[in-house]
Amino acid sequence: MFESAEVGHRIADREYKRAVTKLREDLLKAQYDLISRKSFQLIVLTGGVDGAGKSETVNVLNEWMDPRGISTHAFGAMSEDERERPKMWRYWCALPPKGRMAILFGAWDADPIAERVHGDTDEAEFELALGNIVGFERMLANEGALILKFWFHLSKKAQKKRLKALSSDPKTRWRVTDAEWERFEHYDRYRKVSEIAVRETSTSYAPWMIVEGTDANYRYLTVGRMLLEAMRKRLAGKKPVITRTAVLPPPPLDGRSLLSQVDYRASLGDSEYKRMLEKYQRELNLLMRHKKLRRKSIIAVFEGVDAAGKGGSIRRVTGALDARQYQVIPIAAPTDEESARPYLWRFWRHLPRKGRMTIFDRSWYGRVLVERVEKLCAEDDWMRAYEEINDFEEQLIEANCVVTKFWLTISKQEQLKRFRAREKTPFKTFKITRDDWRNRAKWDDYERAVGDMIERTSNRPAPWILVPGNDKHWARISVLKTLCERIDAAL
Amino acid sequence: MFESAEVGHRIADREYKRAVTKLREDLLKAQYDLISRKSFQLIVLTGGVDGAGKSETVNVLNEWMDPRGISTHAFGAMSEDERERPKMWRYWCALPPKGRMAILFGAWDADPIAERVHGDTDEAEFELALGNIVGFERMLANEGALILKFWFHLSKKAQKKRLKALSSDPKTRWRVTDAEWERFEHYDRYRKVSEIAVRETSTSYAPWMIVEGTDANYRYLTVGRMLLEAMRKRLAGKKPVITRTAVLPPPPLDGRSLLSQVDYRASLGDSEYKRMLEKYQRELNLLMRHKKLRRKSIIAVFEGVDAAGKGGSIRRVTGALDARQYQVIPIAAPTDEESARPYLWRFWRHLPRKGRMTIFDRSWYGRVLVERVEKLCAEDDWMRAYEEINDFEEQLIEANCVVTKFWLTISKQEQLKRFRAREKTPFKTFKITRDDWRNRAKWDDYERAVGDMIERTSNRPAPWILVPGNDKHWARISVLKTLCERIDAAL
Repeated sequence: MFESAEVGHRIADREYKRAVTKLREDLLKAQYDLISRKSFQLIVLTGGVDGAGKSETVNVLNEWMDPRGISTHAFGAMSEDERERPKMWRYWCALPPKGRMAILFGAWDADPIAERVHGDTDEAEFELALGNIVGFERMLANEGALILKFWFHLSKKAQKKRLKALSSDPKTRWRVTDAEWERFEHYDRYRKVSEIAVRETSTSYAPWMIVEGTDANYRYLTVGRMLLEAMRKRLAGKKPVITRTAVLPPPPLDGRSLLSQVDYRASLGDSEYKRMLEKYQRELNLLMRHKKLRRKSIIAVFEGVDAAGKGGSIRRVTGALDARQYQVIPIAAPTDEESARPYLWRFWRHLPRKGRMTIFDRSWYGRVLVERVEKLCAEDDWMRAYEEINDFEEQLIEANCVVTKFWLTISKQEQLKRFRAREKTPFKTFKITRDDWRNRAKWDDYERAVGDMIERTSNRPAPWILVPGNDKHWARISVLKTLCERIDAAL
Repeated sequence: MFESAEVGHRIADREYKRAVTKLREDLLKAQYDLISRKSFQLIVLTGGVDGAGKSETVNVLNEWMDPRGISTHAFGAMSEDERERPKMWRYWCALPPKGRMAILFGAWDADPIAERVHGDTDEAEFELALGNIVGFERMLANEGALILKFWFHLSKKAQKKRLKALSSDPKTRWRVTDAEWERFEHYDRYRKVSEIAVRETSTSYAPWMIVEGTDANYRYLTVGRMLLEAMRKRLAGKKPVITRTAVLPPPPLDGRSLLSQVDYRASLGDSEYKRMLEKYQRELNLLMRHKKLRRKSIIAVFEGVDAAGKGGSIRRVTGALDARQYQVIPIAAPTDEESARPYLWRFWRHLPRKGRMTIFDRSWYGRVLVERVEKLCAEDDWMRAYEEINDFEEQLIEANCVVTKFWLTISKQEQLKRFRAREKTPFKTFKITRDDWRNRAKWDDYERAVGDMIERTSNRPAPWILVPGNDKHWARISVLKTLCERIDAAL
């Protein structure tokens, strides 16, 4: 597939100069449109062989366009902070907000290729990694990003010539180190692996565009024009929606659902509750100080029906811990910085380091719960979220994170009782708003959404724990006990 | 001064229990007021001797209040990311937004004490560090933060007893390591140094409150009540304004100002410009790849009159660099996350790592320019900003950062010419708005503000470079040349 980039494309200087003036102006215009409309973010990935002109081209783009609207990131060895999070975390953090453009060197596309070339992964792992990239980029595209990927190619002969030329010029000698020559030794293998990667991660929404790297004029003009065309097309049209066909099953004919079957009878008396609270809080405290926990992180997600007792349960968990070990993230409306990025970004930024716990009071599941029921996002958007969430949690688990998700539920009758009690207690009135009554009116819609959510996102490594909460004692102990068991099993 | 915390304060269990129920409720109420009003942020610092109950007390506060509104941070050894920025950077990053509370263990108060105890600093350096803390906390208070500092004290005898008790109990033994015993050996010196620090950093806006640590009941109740009282007082009243009396000199009687004296005659012809552009861009490129630069970072600030050519100058600088080395930060209106924190926060977050350059297109000087002239902040606020900015830049310089500030200026006549040209060129109309004309009408006010700014914030390590910009060539070469000289001198 790289043959088309070995034909010796060339643009004469005169033609180049004539074309560039207009191209620069057009690119700048398109960029200002992007900046002023803030309708999407532009992500440019660069890949390819050493010496094929990646960094020169990026510098030229920064020269042609306004560098104030562009961030350029190169990814080398991981820092401490990065090693303590999922592999993808540093790329997540580098994603630009809407209205801006980011150029990424050696981002998520580079790792699977390098690992396969060095034999660190087998073919199945390589294929899996490529599949993950396709899924990740599909999510980005669906979240509004315009993704362009440029692959800079040189034939083996051309690369050798280029590396030699670079190393014989004192001004560029520093760029060709042993690492470059070592990679050149693997040219054939690198090419073979890259071909597979480029083919399998080229999609309609994030295509690789192969650019012959021999002639600078050709290279710059080609990249500039492809960039311009893609930006113009997107600025003129709408965000394309790319979903896999996914269908939810219809509601069951007999009206029975997971939630309607919950048994609320279990309860705990005062003294039994006290005893067990002490027991499991002590256990959780010891577990969190376990030596092996230094290599794990913990995420606990709390979702549930309004007034089911999320806050009370969270406080029984934090009551067991040292305040320096955990962070509770209450999820409210997104800030403007959060709204300008993919919806998972506001959770990515709070992922715990090793040895720590993050408790999410509401979470990324808002997309398939409130956003679905209240129609705050399109059906396509929440439908694709199941898969995106599963991908995200898979990455957490791969990064040694223990993920547990609690759904706290109470009966419709119990909710009414609690709402009324809140309205009467002056100290608790802040806890009951018109929203709560409105949500309650949509009880059945929520029940269906929760059923679908659990069916599609509960799995062994990141299970949903259904906690009946009519009896607060029982609910709190269930949460603590489960958390202990989950952490214990992971150590 | 610690004697008052060695008297054996004690609260009986019965009295404690009775008091706590009410206190918890009141604290929670105050916290919800804080969360819903978002009128200030609450910063709690904890200091004192080992074993005096710091962490227990913080855990109790997290239990009494809603942990969803609290972040707790402990600062240990610095990470890679932290070592590459000013010492204070990690504390800056931990500051909570308005509406939230942060509890900090061993933050900016701890370093000067530890360094002095270990003899890493002499008395003068210690005094300087304490002075910096006072200035930093004054800035935070003026920016709206409520700062409370709790010092947990134990007499030498009581500490010994406490450490022994902790190490003999298998459940708490892990908490007493050699480090704690080693620190105990230095008790007398630590106490002496701490007394000075506590005294000199106790201010009306950030007082240290000394708490005897022997009796848990006394400790919890004392801290809880002081916290409640301070929150209530602040929730009921207004933000206190704390400024040093600073007075600006009146405008000079003869109407002459720094800017009115600028000589705009210098210019560069096309061929000379091309030659010098190439020369200085090459030089800058080489300097940025210098080995010694790996231990430095570069900040270039661009401010100036509208249409003075900031953008063009910035592009000539970035044109010399590899896109991976720099970041251009255009300063627009603050996001809501930025508005919820001290005004310097939106610059803190973009500080470069070592080996990198950050270019600010407009900057923290907005406070003493547009915010002053347009009356976007109170006079007290911009008046105190000179000192705060100087403090901030001093810390950058201490962290091996090369700071250069360019003021690009053009004559009033030249500005008119450029505004008109922009209005006529379809491609440039986006560059001229009603704001520009409005600013132009306030030319004299801006001129005075710029004069005051340069007088108060230009200094040898972070100078203001006045660049006459009527001739664009001349201005661009001046900027490049100065930047080269500044970096060269620092290597």
